[in-house]
Amino acid sequence: MKNSFGQNLTVTLFGESHGPYIGAVLDGFAPGIVIDEDYIRYQLSLRRPFGKISTGRVEEDAFEIVSGMYQGRTTGTPLCILIPNRAQNSGDYGERVIRPGHADYTGYCKYHGFEDHRGGGHFSGRITAALVAAGAVAQSALMEKDIMIGSHILQLQGISDRHFEDIPADIAYINKQAFPVFHPAAKEGMEEEILSAAQRGDSVGGILESAIYGMPAGVGEPWFDSVEGMLAHALYSIPAVKGVQFGLGFDGCKYYGSDYNDPLRYEDDEVVTVSNHNGGINGGITNGMPILFRTAIKPTPSIFTKQDSIDIATHENTTIQVKGRHDPAIIHRARVVVDSVSALVMYDLLAGRYGTDYFIPLD
Amino acid sequence: MKNSFGQNLTVTLFGESHGPYIGAVLDGFAPGIVIDEDYIRYQLSLRRPFGKISTGRVEEDAFEIVSGMYQGRTTGTPLCILIPNRAQNSGDYGERVIRPGHADYTGYCKYHGFEDHRGGGHFSGRITAALVAAGAVAQSALMEKDIMIGSHILQLQGISDRHFEDIPADIAYINKQAFPVFHPAAKEGMEEEILSAAQRGDSVGGILESAIYGMPAGVGEPWFDSVEGMLAHALYSIPAVKGVQFGLGFDGCKYYGSDYNDPLRYEDDEVVTVSNHNGGINGGITNGMPILFRTAIKPTPSIFTKQDSIDIATHENTTIQVKGRHDPAIIHRARVVVDSVSALVMYDLLAGRYGTDYFIPLD
Amino acid sequence: MKNSFGQNLTVTLFGESHGPYIGAVLDGFAPGIVIDEDYIRYQLSLRRPFGKISTGRVEEDAFEIVSGMYQGRTTGTPLCILIPNRAQNSGDYGERVIRPGHADYTGYCKYHGFEDHRGGGHFSGRITAALVAAGAVAQSALMEKDIMIGSHILQLQGISDRHFEDIPADIAYINKQAFPVFHPAAKEGMEEEILSAAQRGDSVGGILESAIYGMPAGVGEPWFDSVEGMLAHALYSIPAVKGVQFGLGFDGCKYYGSDYNDPLRYEDDEVVTVSNHNGGINGGITNGMPILFRTAIKPTPSIFTKQDSIDIATHENTTIQVKGRHDPAIIHRARVVVDSVSALVMYDLLAGRYGTDYFIPLD
Amino acid sequence: MKNSFGQNLTVTLFGESHGPYIGAVLDGFAPGIVIDEDYIRYQLSLRRPFGKISTGRVEEDAFEIVSGMYQGRTTGTPLCILIPNRAQNSGDYGERVIRPGHADYTGYCKYHGFEDHRGGGHFSGRITAALVAAGAVAQSALMEKDIMIGSHILQLQGISDRHFEDIPADIAYINKQAFPVFHPAAKEGMEEEILSAAQRGDSVGGILESAIYGMPAGVGEPWFDSVEGMLAHALYSIPAVKGVQFGLGFDGCKYYGSDYNDPLRYEDDEVVTVSNHNGGINGGITNGMPILFRTAIKPTPSIFTKQDSIDIATHENTTIQVKGRHDPAIIHRARVVVDSVSALVMYDLLAGRYGTDYFIPLD
Repeated sequence: MKNSFGQNLTVTLFGESHGPYIGAVLDGFAPGIVIDEDYIRYQLSLRRPFGKISTGRVEEDAFEIVSGMYQGRTTGTPLCILIPNRAQNSGDYGERVIRPGHADYTGYCKYHGFEDHRGGGHFSGRITAALVAAGAVAQSALMEKDIMIGSHILQLQGISDRHFEDIPADIAYINKQAFPVFHPAAKEGMEEEILSAAQRGDSVGGILESAIYGMPAGVGEPWFDSVEGMLAHALYSIPAVKGVQFGLGFDGCKYYGSDYNDPLRYEDDEVVTVSNHNGGINGGITNGMPILFRTAIKPTPSIFTKQDSIDIATHENTTIQVKGRHDPAIIHRARVVVDSVSALVMYDLLAGRYGTDYFIPLD
Repeated sequence: MKNSFGQNLTVTLFGESHGPYIGAVLDGFAPGIVIDEDYIRYQLSLRRPFGKISTGRVEEDAFEIVSGMYQGRTTGTPLCILIPNRAQNSGDYGERVIRPGHADYTGYCKYHGFEDHRGGGHFSGRITAALVAAGAVAQSALMEKDIMIGSHILQLQGISDRHFEDIPADIAYINKQAFPVFHPAAKEGMEEEILSAAQRGDSVGGILESAIYGMPAGVGEPWFDSVEGMLAHALYSIPAVKGVQFGLGFDGCKYYGSDYNDPLRYEDDEVVTVSNHNGGINGGITNGMPILFRTAIKPTPSIFTKQDSIDIATHENTTIQVKGRHDPAIIHRARVVVDSVSALVMYDLLAGRYGTDYFIPLD
Repeated sequence: MKNSFGQNLTVTLFGESHGPYIGAVLDGFAPGIVIDEDYIRYQLSLRRPFGKISTGRVEEDAFEIVSGMYQGRTTGTPLCILIPNRAQNSGDYGERVIRPGHADYTGYCKYHGFEDHRGGGHFSGRITAALVAAGAVAQSALMEKDIMIGSHILQLQGISDRHFEDIPADIAYINKQAFPVFHPAAKEGMEEEILSAAQRGDSVGGILESAIYGMPAGVGEPWFDSVEGMLAHALYSIPAVKGVQFGLGFDGCKYYGSDYNDPLRYEDDEVVTVSNHNGGINGGITNGMPILFRTAIKPTPSIFTKQDSIDIATHENTTIQVKGRHDPAIIHRARVVVDSVSALVMYDLLAGRYGTDYFIPLD
Repeated sequence: MKNSFGQNLTVTLFGESHGPYIGAVLDGFAPGIVIDEDYIRYQLSLRRPFGKISTGRVEEDAFEIVSGMYQGRTTGTPLCILIPNRAQNSGDYGERVIRPGHADYTGYCKYHGFEDHRGGGHFSGRITAALVAAGAVAQSALMEKDIMIGSHILQLQGISDRHFEDIPADIAYINKQAFPVFHPAAKEGMEEEILSAAQRGDSVGGILESAIYGMPAGVGEPWFDSVEGMLAHALYSIPAVKGVQFGLGFDGCKYYGSDYNDPLRYEDDEVVTVSNHNGGINGGITNGMPILFRTAIKPTPSIFTKQDSIDIATHENTTIQVKGRHDPAIIHRARVVVDSVSALVMYDLLAGRYGTDYFIPLD
């Protein structure tokens, strides 16, 4: 499957940073889902660079749905979204000096130099625009089932935001923020950190915290298509993601079992857990509590500082000073990509469990 | 695919904790791989409980390869490994009170009460014995290609082991240790922590650090079958895994791009990176450096302390005091499962890149 | 996937003719399906050689379900069926002279001589016993949905049986016949043909005609997982199948469109077609009419006549005179394999459309 | 996977007859394959309607490769081909009266009326233009490996062409013919039949015979991804295909085993079979002889004669007289679709066996 993901809703990505189009094919959507192009546009706007904390390359992200849509709704056949590349500036990428931290070298090893390396080619974060557009359609369907997804920056260079508290309200709030942080002081501090790094020609990463609210219990597979495994698999495709953890995750190693275990209770004949250290998943399967996970975003590798590297054309050690337009941070833009990927995976798992027709709108 | 994993080497797991057999079918092994039954037995012994720090249920793990083997070698057809269950004691599992932290409740939601819940059924860590036997065959094939895999306990209740240093030597050393820690004082401290938890009827988790040495550059896919995605997907199937991170992982959010990026160099006309903060992977694809990752293991949920829970038969809140034989820690046993899963994934990726015949022994 | 088939219900086959076991793992069964071991035994009996028209090797086909079953029902986890091999006689297969028409040579090319070639190894028709046992569980679930499957010998060496007429009654009748023919004279003639071929040390093939009754309209995919494509894919795995056609199939080339097209009508507010030349499928999707197809079975390649062949050990032209116990015809045994494969494919398609829980028994 | 096919080279189709674009994404091509746009155009021209024997709707089939290509070669990343729809005439398709023999009714059942039914929508033969463009790239790669594929009309309304004789020369010849028949008199007779049917407002089908020359021995899987199963699966996606048979196929039931079996011989130390009744495949695996198969094409369902049918909007029985522009025969256009599908499947099987890099051009 390689560049595809999902068994019941399969997303296939194509495109290069400097080619005519990037895009996605989505196979498995139920027929009849209303496609809200404004919502797709809004989600794309959350991913788009903005202000002083982002790259100068700003794509309009005009998208076109060229199949699988009829009279404003999904048809049930493969839905292809095309997004034209317009603002690329290929002149900046002529040489074959490897950019450290990028996929330049690994792409060269894999594709033997035949790859379109301009702007990172198929490895470029640009491709995530297609994921966001795709995910927006899945989100529309999930919202009809009262399933909500949101992410915020939990940590950036030592500055921490608060955790999720009232999850549905927090998701509603955060999805309206261009810079996704709950605490105003944290927001200010993080933006300062990004600007300061930008001024030094450097970059920062951080940690995203995400919540998926409203998933029914009993979804996922024990081996191997666990909710954690499926989500992590997909999330690791997002450039710069280097870690994924659920519930307490790595902090869980500080707990004893007696503190870690989430006690169960009936509340109004519904099963809940008193704590949610397992992040809504036991044995790979949803337990009905919110799914909570964190994603580590490494500092953007494109920095303007001079770095040691190699020239694969001449086979010589050299230095590189990256030019062009680059983000000092992508974490605030990555959050909508994380949400989009999460939406696609949740849709896939639900369609597997309840059948293709589950998402057909009733009325 | 659900209970299967891998595109070129596919492993399918079956079995329940208290059924007659657990097992695995492996489809995609090259023909001609020597099956070293002693090595399989050794790997199984690393997973088996031992000493005072483990459960009283000790299975002999006699395994039988019932297909895909002829004259001591793989045939290239599906290889089925059966492991009989002999020491199960079903008397302990009669009730349907949910054990907190286990898959009892989620299994019930998914399978509507038809699941064989005895001893955790298909969710039981017991199933990993089949994964270990399967992984041992893959490891034999990888070792012929000078690829080595090893894991140690990096952290357990505040006690830390040193990181990997001389990776090939460290892997060779650690794979001979029943309790996988480099530093003798750390080993002693961790064992004491486990014993102390056991005496209180409690349990501990921890963090495993793993290294894969010798993978060629250029293996993996950008979207979605990245090395990180494939490994994480498979690792999350191991019961109790709640986090996976590569290279610096979550600690990377403390770095600036200028420190994080791994500078490249030619050394003897081979490309190396000066640091390895990316854990041997860029853009989802191996760069030829060792693959480094960490896995979070939550505290074993089966504890002897009384816990609040529910009875799904009566729909009432109640308490549970788990009986039977349970591990106060599984992290030292889990490391060989992590290694086995890693071996299966590496085999799969290599066979995809280089074809089925890549692992056929030359002579 | 190689030795696996099906997206929602996946069957994985393993085993060799002369190994200790053959078997199947079935992943995707709904929980709660009653496993009728008598019915499995009955279906296996239809596949077993009998009388003078079959091989002398008669396996008892004692099967054991070692996972995925609890209290006589499916659990929803992978169901593994083991069938021990007991009557094999490996002494007959020592040499490496290639049997014409068999997979001996192609297996050698694929597996480089490491294959277990005894008795055809993994290519042996013996493996279909596992398919039949697997299919019997799927059939039990389909029968609960009033879906029936049956096959008869339409043609054998110029002797023809009548076509299906009253399909539900015909299926019920034919599934009780050890030699599956409607017309008594045709049965007699076919059996004589088989006996006569057997006496000459020769073999015969024939054509099976199959009907699947009761499938709802709207199941299947336009590209590529059409009902025809999925069925044909699976049917071609049955050794000796060399052709599959639906509805009028190859005879359709004699028709004009005006005769071929099936006119539609409402009857009691249900849509039916007046004729069924399309065999119940349009555009790859069921139309609610019976699915009708025919399968070409080539003459059994194991004959006792001396044949020209090669010795792959010595690289010399030679002759071969096959010894051992072989069927002069397998078509009457193959029909239950065709039915079983069909049941697995129908289950898979229905589970994809309606979700995993579709087959959970209501009560 | 639904609208995707292939494990190592995966083709995903999208588009509707009257949407802005149809297209295909191909994932798994080796990097470095020269993309010959003239050859793609030529192959598309073989599929395009022409002369009096075809529909009046003639699409220019201007295609654009929007990803996975760089400097005229494949990059190894997903290759997306877009073909704009320009000549559609949606005015002809306003009603919801079901056209007999089409997927109108089954599409309605599957997609609940949300499908874009205009011109057959996603079921339209128009989609095969994308398959042909995709297949042309695969053919280019196969030709570098001296693998050739060709098809001719074996039978049409009682008129028969001769069989393949000198296969490489026959393939070279037939691939230059717009109307693919070897025997001039057969060509003339068939064209007359088509014209005569057209004049009566009727349509004809026929049988295609295909040959694949140059495949190495040892490719394919015993269960379930046999060469026959994979080819048939893909071929059944082509609209109007109702039968697929290999080698002698259904005629094989007239043979005894002693005549059917193909004797083997060494010729110049290469293994050949004296006859090729098995069509180049034993046990699902290539034996190095040409792969021979036949495909049944049903008469085009769009005819101008009045037919009984139903109106799914009013739930009433009615009649339909199809208007618009329709082919009286598509078999001469279908042959390049059969060749294209075959090329994609052969590429997939070879890449699975020999690895992704097998098709990288050496030099």
